[in-house]
Amino acid sequence: MAFLKVVPLEEALKVIDSFPLKPEIEEVSLEKALGRVLAEDVVSPIDVPPFDRATVDGYAVRAEDTFMASESEPVRLKVIGEINAGDTPTIELKPGESVYISTGAPLPKGADAVIQFEDVDREGDEVVIYKPAYPSLGVMKRGADIPKGRSLLEKGTRLGFKETALLSAVGFSKVRVFRKPKVAVISTGNEVILPGTELKYGQIYDINGRAIADAVRELGGEAIFLGIARDDRESLRELILRGVECCDIVLLSGGASGGIRDLTSSIIEELGEVKIHGIAIQPGKPTIIGLINGKPIFGLPGYPTSCLTNFTLLVAPLLRKLLGRENEVRKVKKRLAHKVFSVKGRRQFLPVRIEGEKAVPILKGSGAVTSFIDADGFIEVSENVEILEAGEEVEVTFFG
Amino acid sequence: MAFLKVVPLEEALKVIDSFPLKPEIEEVSLEKALGRVLAEDVVSPIDVPPFDRATVDGYAVRAEDTFMASESEPVRLKVIGEINAGDTPTIELKPGESVYISTGAPLPKGADAVIQFEDVDREGDEVVIYKPAYPSLGVMKRGADIPKGRSLLEKGTRLGFKETALLSAVGFSKVRVFRKPKVAVISTGNEVILPGTELKYGQIYDINGRAIADAVRELGGEAIFLGIARDDRESLRELILRGVECCDIVLLSGGASGGIRDLTSSIIEELGEVKIHGIAIQPGKPTIIGLINGKPIFGLPGYPTSCLTNFTLLVAPLLRKLLGRENEVRKVKKRLAHKVFSVKGRRQFLPVRIEGEKAVPILKGSGAVTSFIDADGFIEVSENVEILEAGEEVEVTFFG
Repeated sequence: MAFLKVVPLEEALKVIDSFPLKPEIEEVSLEKALGRVLAEDVVSPIDVPPFDRATVDGYAVRAEDTFMASESEPVRLKVIGEINAGDTPTIELKPGESVYISTGAPLPKGADAVIQFEDVDREGDEVVIYKPAYPSLGVMKRGADIPKGRSLLEKGTRLGFKETALLSAVGFSKVRVFRKPKVAVISTGNEVILPGTELKYGQIYDINGRAIADAVRELGGEAIFLGIARDDRESLRELILRGVECCDIVLLSGGASGGIRDLTSSIIEELGEVKIHGIAIQPGKPTIIGLINGKPIFGLPGYPTSCLTNFTLLVAPLLRKLLGRENEVRKVKKRLAHKVFSVKGRRQFLPVRIEGEKAVPILKGSGAVTSFIDADGFIEVSENVEILEAGEEVEVTFFG
Repeated sequence: MAFLKVVPLEEALKVIDSFPLKPEIEEVSLEKALGRVLAEDVVSPIDVPPFDRATVDGYAVRAEDTFMASESEPVRLKVIGEINAGDTPTIELKPGESVYISTGAPLPKGADAVIQFEDVDREGDEVVIYKPAYPSLGVMKRGADIPKGRSLLEKGTRLGFKETALLSAVGFSKVRVFRKPKVAVISTGNEVILPGTELKYGQIYDINGRAIADAVRELGGEAIFLGIARDDRESLRELILRGVECCDIVLLSGGASGGIRDLTSSIIEELGEVKIHGIAIQPGKPTIIGLINGKPIFGLPGYPTSCLTNFTLLVAPLLRKLLGRENEVRKVKKRLAHKVFSVKGRRQFLPVRIEGEKAVPILKGSGAVTSFIDADGFIEVSENVEILEAGEEVEVTFFG
């Protein structure tokens, strides 16, 4: 096994960015598009509305026929028919004519205004009009809402219900979105068992497997949890191979033991290449990053908070890149609630909870489950800093 | 068909709240719990860690054996074995003894401290200790992270990856969550067709069906889109009956025509009871609310912005109640970006877009698709108000 030096975070990120994974595109039905990320700009292929449309119930007229109308000398137009929403009118209005029209119906040829029925009188086959109508009264013109060719949604938009409704409105039944990256999740450790079975003395329940799998899902990826590898070469090698086969990315979370790290590293060397072995951050020193058959594999630290911090720093940006969500802001500026001490020469990431405008450091130690449960994210304390004072501005990165 | 008077919004909400629907509970596997809402308080059934646990690799000792240790007069203890993570130790330390222990392993009986291997020397079957260890050094005590009986999560919590991880950590493989309410979604209108088919003259694509179905899903409900009813009694009656059969709630969005409202109302009268026919708000006057076989049915306005506003005001609170998410805040205070005029005596809801600290009114008219696409939510303008000045504080309710 080659010895690899501990590298700065930025170098690790560059290595990850250079991995041969690219966003892929798939077409899904609009029914299933909610929450997906648009893979291309969308331009309206039609005018909305696609025809001049009545916006009230009333009488479609040629506006010029009504210009002389007044209370004392009303205009009378012959009603030659009726058009309802959904009808395909063949009528063409000639001077002196009108049709009864309902809201949403297309105007007949020749008509350019609709007078609401409340404003007129109907006498036999005539409508009596008491004031002039101007062209476009009671009409939404073709394309007035969305003209054909109008840019509607940008590549990278996460589709909420407003966006899927808009796509429906302009006629799309399918939409091109970024494919969800498939992520294999493997927990490790002889002491780790799945919840639902009884603990024997010396065992603990898996945390990282669930946390990482569900964090991948929240990000928009597809997580496949492969189970827990024992601290032996065969067990770990088998799960890594299964992960590389079924998925685009493989994530391991270390057990407590250092042995698993050496095993992971040696198996990656055998099957592919170790690219990073240790990052000069705390937590993160034990992190391993490799490539097997062009598929990235990450060995994340075992302590839950460390695991989640490294997932957030290293894996989440890759997933966002594959999901077309690179530009999402996952940081917020807050004021530190109280003083924290760090070790000079150590680049540290500290879990914090957000309370209003404050970032409250969680100082339970990374071994505690509850330290990541209580935290919303983390702040960075750079190498040269020993003390961060209360009230200082800090940038909080949200987990995930 | 009974004539029903237009009622204030508050009365409509009271009627909806009195409907015989209650939150229901189901058990799901933790694998599928992400995004669901917890239906009961969760208390830890175990201590985490479930045993005194080594937090470093090193030597488990009886601390008192080391109290006299110094650089000049180190203490020597006999190493009687090794304990790894996942082991079930049967060893009991007697005075003068120690064991090699790895991180995550349970302490043997008698031991109360772990000294890291970097701080000692190993000579044959002895470990040489140069300074005293205090009890609990290098140890996470049983229950120190989460004691058994500790309250962990409250009923009504939406489960994110941190929460599912916590549930895993304390051993739950299943969890009781609120059942997703099933909502039938029906669009109406002779002029409305589904996207993916070519528009004939006079037709428009469905918007409300997609918007409402996906808004229900975003809220955490299950939406079943039943298609588009024609403006005839048989078509509408059939879809309403299917909705009542398959779902807990039925949502119709009106076409442009008034006829569909009368039909809806008459069909509800035939099959059940119309409870509300018209609400004294704009938009919302044409809204119909009824009950068929104990299942609420809502006839929402046809214009997309009106439809979504009424969905937000009337249906979303019911869905949140069924999902145990009643207390969620969906409002935010902003300053009005520019003056708006309203009609005295009319309680109005105006779509607005949020830009930083400002609420920008969208004044395109409710017939425009783009007015709800551009908006984030709406503000209320009460009956007595004719003008809201720029800079005035307004409360924005988010759509959905």
